[in-house]
Amino acid sequence: MKTAISPTRSENYPQWYQEVISQADLAQLSAVRGCMIMTPWGYALWEMIYHTLDQQIKAYGHENIYCPLFVPLSDLEKEAEHIDGFAKECAVVTHTKLEKNGQGNLVPGSPLEEPLIIRPTSEMIIGELFSQRIQSHRDLPVLVNQWANIVRWEMRTRMFLRTTEFLWQEGHTAHATAEEAQAHTLQMLACYRRLCHDFLAIPVITGMKSINEKFPGAEETYTIEGIMQDGKVLQMGTSHFLGQTFAKSCDIQFQDAEKSLQYVHTTSWGVTTRLIGGLIMTHADDNGLICPPTLSPHQVVIIPLIKKNMDANQVYDYCEKIKSLLRTQRFRDLPIRVFIDMKDKKPSEKKWSWVKKGVPIRLEIGQREFENQTVCYSSRLSADHSKHTLGLADFAEQLSQQLDSIQRDIYMKAKSALSEANCPLLTSEDQLRSHFSSERPSPALIYWIDNDAVEQALQADYKVSIRCYPQTEVFDHSDQAPALFDPDKKGRLALIAKAY
Amino acid sequence: MKTAISPTRSENYPQWYQEVISQADLAQLSAVRGCMIMTPWGYALWEMIYHTLDQQIKAYGHENIYCPLFVPLSDLEKEAEHIDGFAKECAVVTHTKLEKNGQGNLVPGSPLEEPLIIRPTSEMIIGELFSQRIQSHRDLPVLVNQWANIVRWEMRTRMFLRTTEFLWQEGHTAHATAEEAQAHTLQMLACYRRLCHDFLAIPVITGMKSINEKFPGAEETYTIEGIMQDGKVLQMGTSHFLGQTFAKSCDIQFQDAEKSLQYVHTTSWGVTTRLIGGLIMTHADDNGLICPPTLSPHQVVIIPLIKKNMDANQVYDYCEKIKSLLRTQRFRDLPIRVFIDMKDKKPSEKKWSWVKKGVPIRLEIGQREFENQTVCYSSRLSADHSKHTLGLADFAEQLSQQLDSIQRDIYMKAKSALSEANCPLLTSEDQLRSHFSSERPSPALIYWIDNDAVEQALQADYKVSIRCYPQTEVFDHSDQAPALFDPDKKGRLALIAKAY
Repeated sequence: MKTAISPTRSENYPQWYQEVISQADLAQLSAVRGCMIMTPWGYALWEMIYHTLDQQIKAYGHENIYCPLFVPLSDLEKEAEHIDGFAKECAVVTHTKLEKNGQGNLVPGSPLEEPLIIRPTSEMIIGELFSQRIQSHRDLPVLVNQWANIVRWEMRTRMFLRTTEFLWQEGHTAHATAEEAQAHTLQMLACYRRLCHDFLAIPVITGMKSINEKFPGAEETYTIEGIMQDGKVLQMGTSHFLGQTFAKSCDIQFQDAEKSLQYVHTTSWGVTTRLIGGLIMTHADDNGLICPPTLSPHQVVIIPLIKKNMDANQVYDYCEKIKSLLRTQRFRDLPIRVFIDMKDKKPSEKKWSWVKKGVPIRLEIGQREFENQTVCYSSRLSADHSKHTLGLADFAEQLSQQLDSIQRDIYMKAKSALSEANCPLLTSEDQLRSHFSSERPSPALIYWIDNDAVEQALQADYKVSIRCYPQTEVFDHSDQAPALFDPDKKGRLALIAKAY
Repeated sequence: MKTAISPTRSENYPQWYQEVISQADLAQLSAVRGCMIMTPWGYALWEMIYHTLDQQIKAYGHENIYCPLFVPLSDLEKEAEHIDGFAKECAVVTHTKLEKNGQGNLVPGSPLEEPLIIRPTSEMIIGELFSQRIQSHRDLPVLVNQWANIVRWEMRTRMFLRTTEFLWQEGHTAHATAEEAQAHTLQMLACYRRLCHDFLAIPVITGMKSINEKFPGAEETYTIEGIMQDGKVLQMGTSHFLGQTFAKSCDIQFQDAEKSLQYVHTTSWGVTTRLIGGLIMTHADDNGLICPPTLSPHQVVIIPLIKKNMDANQVYDYCEKIKSLLRTQRFRDLPIRVFIDMKDKKPSEKKWSWVKKGVPIRLEIGQREFENQTVCYSSRLSADHSKHTLGLADFAEQLSQQLDSIQRDIYMKAKSALSEANCPLLTSEDQLRSHFSSERPSPALIYWIDNDAVEQALQADYKVSIRCYPQTEVFDHSDQAPALFDPDKKGRLALIAKAY
């Protein structure tokens, strides 16, 4: 059967990925290297994520704020490990104004006294804010979050996965004790995991990053890692326990109940537009994107079928009637989102555009459906695009259940990639070599102790990295055993994989 | 009576303004010149505006997108008038990476081949997008909008009114005909006026800008202007009919029904975080901000009064009961927003913090209220902060009406500043001199024809500018009459004022 996306996943996975983005009209490259324009359907997916996650974050008591785009270079320098981590990725504003030079060309005009960095993250600005607003233990905890754009100058960019500018949410908190900050770090990690499981229908592995992979300035970095259809792993969000690193470099102190001055303990955590890349690589197939109903901006799309010599208004009115009725139904406590596609295009073009955009359910409504008061529907998950007919009232009644079953099917399909069988435990270098020399190898598990030289060799030889120490409940192995590369010592169970 | 804000409006209006922002904790200056940090209550106001306006814009059929922060200099140069208008305000990225110099200091590393401008507006990026996406008349109209941050390097900054970085919404549309584009320009102007009137309770004058004040590249700029309490006028939003200016510089053409190539006609329109500045200067008083109930993030705040030797939980439980009950009530079709202030602070401090933040209704709930199942309430509009008591059920029942009456009172008070009496028609230079030489002069009307030299002299002599040609229905004067500075010609009725 001809597929809508060419090449297919098996033919060329990276090109298939770009083609899904293009055919589903999620984004396009812009004139600025490494930056993309998020077009309506792609941005609508981000808006759905924003609205859902924003509510969840607020439910924990966080308040949204907005901090400046610019960070003075001297501020960024206050924390050595932090600036080291980001120095190579900074975009630097050195001038204001444009002026005409001798040749009449516009060139940068007034040099700034101090260069400004476009935020690669906001720890230093938030540190300044916290330092001013926190005086007493009564002011703690401080829980804030912001939705913002971020710039990190990347060498190799790919839409959604790694772009020079991206959108994200960054939470920042300050606590009186290390224990409370650590608990908060894990709480937000769990929040991200729930977002992935329940909303994006993406199963993820949660765990702690190795020393090499942690956030510059953090004491501990936790991560959610998703397994893509090509076996590579995608880091989809991180939550950092920052200890007192930023409290000390930004001088964030409070008077405790005994009136002695203490440094706070901070956390930060974020997810980005990369989630949409993960969505595509987890759920999309050779006909394009597949949106879980929870996420899909439209859950049901109605395509009117108008033939010559017929009363189009009768059909349009019937489509409106269907829309009104379906909207009275609820899925996961929200009214069902229904859209009538009134564009001046052929029905078959419309059908394929919604297949490629991944809308869960399509209705095709013409004269016959109007006369019989029925709907003709098909599910995005049906391999042969088969159509079914039901009376309107019956269809409305079962719709919520049908969406629920689509949601479950999408999740379970993705979940199968994450099974024990697909993450084998490798206990020798031979096993490791043979596993990662195969085509599209799955992730694997090894027992590991932090070792820079070996980690670099693994990257050089097999293009694999230590993704995280999974939280122990995920896999049915003991947490510690002799380390693969140093069997005299106890290693910790670690996820190792090729990664985006 | 002592006021919460010092100085008062009559003592020092500009300082009063800064103090309201500080005392209501809306924003604070950051380490970067001219940039502010929007703190939770200030950002919550912006979120309320965002959610409301976003829905209204979408109801017109616009779809949200997201375009890059950077505009290549060569793109910006494609439209001469446009770049001239923004050249002085650009922030320029010239380098990526930071590197250590000989002294071990971090300095900008790799120079970019072409400087990047941080968007001062997005017409050129949108032009690129439109040019790629528009081929046929069937693709028109294209209606998009984005919520984004903008940078314009300003010499004199004031929080919310004029900041180097600000947040805004910018709509961009392309149409087949000039008439349709013009109608759309006015439609979005009307949308902004409704937002101001119905949601911010700010009466505004709508009209067309003089040639001098129009947007660089526009054929016509329309504006909403609000009259602040000191008589100065604030431009609160603009809507531009761009004609074919950007269609030609960005090559946006479509094939019409007769298969001939035509340039589209475009529009753009935006409102910014400046609306919050307008809100403060329209409604706030010497005790701080006053939020119209439509806008206020909390419409009712409950302050528990706990005394020693009493059962605090009884009072807390009663507060929760009140909150649950009030939330079942609706104001303007939405559940009423109720917040219990559980902070570890004295009740009087809490009371004053909510007065200064402008929450419409405060409840103070203690043992007596619990025992009698009553509420003790006060309105932000009550000059003497008088308290009233009502049975809980009765209070809940009348709450929506009470909020409605607060909304109306706030609007009517602001509206009185916009009366005929406060915008006198000046028909001679003597009248004009005497009017604008007084302290805190109100805006005025004159008959005007575009004249650069006179406009500059008016700015130099009286610090006044032509704000707009008001839409005729606003004032009871004929639209045309002999011009004040050129009585042989017919002038058009124009609003003239000192402005922010």
